[in-house]
Amino acid sequence: MSILIKNVIFNNKKKDILIESNEIKKIDNEINISADEIINAKESKAILPGFINCHTHAAMTLLRGFADDLPLNEWLFNRIFPAEEKLTNEDIYWGTKLALIEMIKSGTIFINEMYLFRGIEGVACAIEEMGIRAVLGICTDDFNFEKVKEFKIPQNTDLIEYAIAPHAIYTAGEKVLKWAKEMSDKNDMLIHMHLSETNKEVMDAIEHYGKRPVNYLNDLGLINDKCIFAHSIWLNNDELDILDEKGCSLVYNPSSNMKLASGVFRFEEIKDKRINICLGTDGSASNNNLDMIEEMKMGALLQKTNDIDPTSGKSEDMLKIATENGAKALRKKTGKIEEGYLADLILIDLEKPHFNPCYNLTSSLVYAANGDCVTDVICNGKLIMKDREIEGEKEVFEKVKEISKKFI
Amino acid sequence: MSILIKNVIFNNKKKDILIESNEIKKIDNEINISADEIINAKESKAILPGFINCHTHAAMTLLRGFADDLPLNEWLFNRIFPAEEKLTNEDIYWGTKLALIEMIKSGTIFINEMYLFRGIEGVACAIEEMGIRAVLGICTDDFNFEKVKEFKIPQNTDLIEYAIAPHAIYTAGEKVLKWAKEMSDKNDMLIHMHLSETNKEVMDAIEHYGKRPVNYLNDLGLINDKCIFAHSIWLNNDELDILDEKGCSLVYNPSSNMKLASGVFRFEEIKDKRINICLGTDGSASNNNLDMIEEMKMGALLQKTNDIDPTSGKSEDMLKIATENGAKALRKKTGKIEEGYLADLILIDLEKPHFNPCYNLTSSLVYAANGDCVTDVICNGKLIMKDREIEGEKEVFEKVKEISKKFI
Repeated sequence: MSILIKNVIFNNKKKDILIESNEIKKIDNEINISADEIINAKESKAILPGFINCHTHAAMTLLRGFADDLPLNEWLFNRIFPAEEKLTNEDIYWGTKLALIEMIKSGTIFINEMYLFRGIEGVACAIEEMGIRAVLGICTDDFNFEKVKEFKIPQNTDLIEYAIAPHAIYTAGEKVLKWAKEMSDKNDMLIHMHLSETNKEVMDAIEHYGKRPVNYLNDLGLINDKCIFAHSIWLNNDELDILDEKGCSLVYNPSSNMKLASGVFRFEEIKDKRINICLGTDGSASNNNLDMIEEMKMGALLQKTNDIDPTSGKSEDMLKIATENGAKALRKKTGKIEEGYLADLILIDLEKPHFNPCYNLTSSLVYAANGDCVTDVICNGKLIMKDREIEGEKEVFEKVKEISKKFI
Repeated sequence: MSILIKNVIFNNKKKDILIESNEIKKIDNEINISADEIINAKESKAILPGFINCHTHAAMTLLRGFADDLPLNEWLFNRIFPAEEKLTNEDIYWGTKLALIEMIKSGTIFINEMYLFRGIEGVACAIEEMGIRAVLGICTDDFNFEKVKEFKIPQNTDLIEYAIAPHAIYTAGEKVLKWAKEMSDKNDMLIHMHLSETNKEVMDAIEHYGKRPVNYLNDLGLINDKCIFAHSIWLNNDELDILDEKGCSLVYNPSSNMKLASGVFRFEEIKDKRINICLGTDGSASNNNLDMIEEMKMGALLQKTNDIDPTSGKSEDMLKIATENGAKALRKKTGKIEEGYLADLILIDLEKPHFNPCYNLTSSLVYAANGDCVTDVICNGKLIMKDREIEGEKEVFEKVKEISKKFI
């Protein structure tokens, strides 16, 4: 399979880009060869690396807008958890498909996913069918641990790499965490985990373990450069030093943190450390969408207002955490447009008001645009969205409508 | 001219809506009469009142993304002001058209506009051509006051009502402010003004006048229920009491306030007063778009994170300030869908991931959607956008591209 993209705007210049198999083969002023698929961007589309969403619970699309504007405990314990109990594994498959459609339509080609362990086979199936990449976390806690331990981890595929996802220190005890560490060491698996999302989590750790979450995890030997910690808001300087020394990845989730009033990620203080900052939307029950372009704007504006400094949260930093930093965390040669990189690319429509005029594409993308500017998506060398059309979209909406009736 | 909208979702039910002349004539389960235009929404579109953007500088679209992530003074004095000097009055006409296209495409049908006085005729012309409503502020300050005084205020039209817009207390001195008050009294004109956007503005007022901005304006007799004050962030309780007693309108500008790190509007403390809170995007040099749906989300999330309370900034409050409160401030019978109200309506596409599933339309609109969900726009009884197509859009983009070259 080869794709030739003609007359596309790349770094402010008109270029042709050739994709062969799953790789960016050539970038040049003009490439005139035959290809299985030719896309003529007519200088009205720009090309960007696809977005990498480093913290998702895809099937929570099923609970989008089901409960909002509530105190955290009421939202989680009285609304979300009871609703999740009603979800069948098939529902999770359809909810994941819905999420992937929304993600592809807003330019995401790679996710760091964790959701209810019991639904993991449906999640994997949905990902393979929709054609984007995922690091798929095997989500474990004290309740499901016995089942998880018996789970035969599937082989990684071209698109899916399995990771260990101990949910959080308040749901997964020492036994689970130590097992996660062993599995990660033995099989070279990434670890995906919630960390210090709320101040309560920190206070509880001090009460139960006599130490803060990062110290607790570090003393268990769990912290290393394979760790991707979501949220990571309530960290003190000593904890940051540990995460820095170990070269961890932290995921900034601005919309979710704002919507749930969790607190503010210390972006400017962290960004020059060895810590690798990524961007994520979280699940769509606490966002409520999966639009990485909107997430970049939220991420930038939240930092400015919190630091009382308009130079905080620069647009180019947001684009970096949404692309190449995500690739670094998830250990794939993607997130950049260079010959030899994976062909995980998106085209965006410059004939929208948001890109007119366009003095600086990154600024226009982050501050003016939204996910609907994405016209075409290529992942692993395959064209998975063309002119905003994705196969099977309507069927998914209909299935989801049926599923949603059990919550009304 | 009559428009019949069939099978549209209104308050969660399928309805037919008849528009005659510029009015909502009838809302019923089924209306079977002939009409000049029939739109069949096929139960896949919902109808909402069009949005009312209560603080805009439309032609600043020309400077969208021209300067970002800079300290406020550098941004304003070294970048924006010098660029504005290069704008011809014709440029302002085209920049306004660009803004109006973006606004219509994201569902706005009414704006409270102020921009450079010298361009006002072009602005009026663009508004009439594009067909949305405006309160058009005659923007005055110490520099242009002699010219403004001589300006013969045009007759109001079906779409445009003129207002007095003294820019701010730091640009318009006592003489200008007193004249504004006289004009407003004599001609029953609204007053549109920036107020207490930054703490510096307040500190300077105390230094120069020995009092805070609201006290200063109140002592000049300027404050009454015809006043619409943009930003209004740095107000103390005494100032809020004055604004409350006088029944003023205040405009919440969340994106701009976040992007310029101006501070946070005290939404929850103000919302139960007689003060009428409206929503605005500000100009697109400090936002950088004009999308009222995104603005509602920003507005909600900023309050939650600032108050450390997920129940602050509820979605239904955001929809109210973006519609009916704007109508109240601008004194038009719009912002609601009821028989006898002006036919200022938008249709939104429910076949997008953001509305699937849909437990609560307001939540989905505010937290999940963006302006691109708007498919059709009716203003003053006329269909000004059909299936996202607006006449003359391409020409405007081309003109603007030409104009933007002088800034590169």
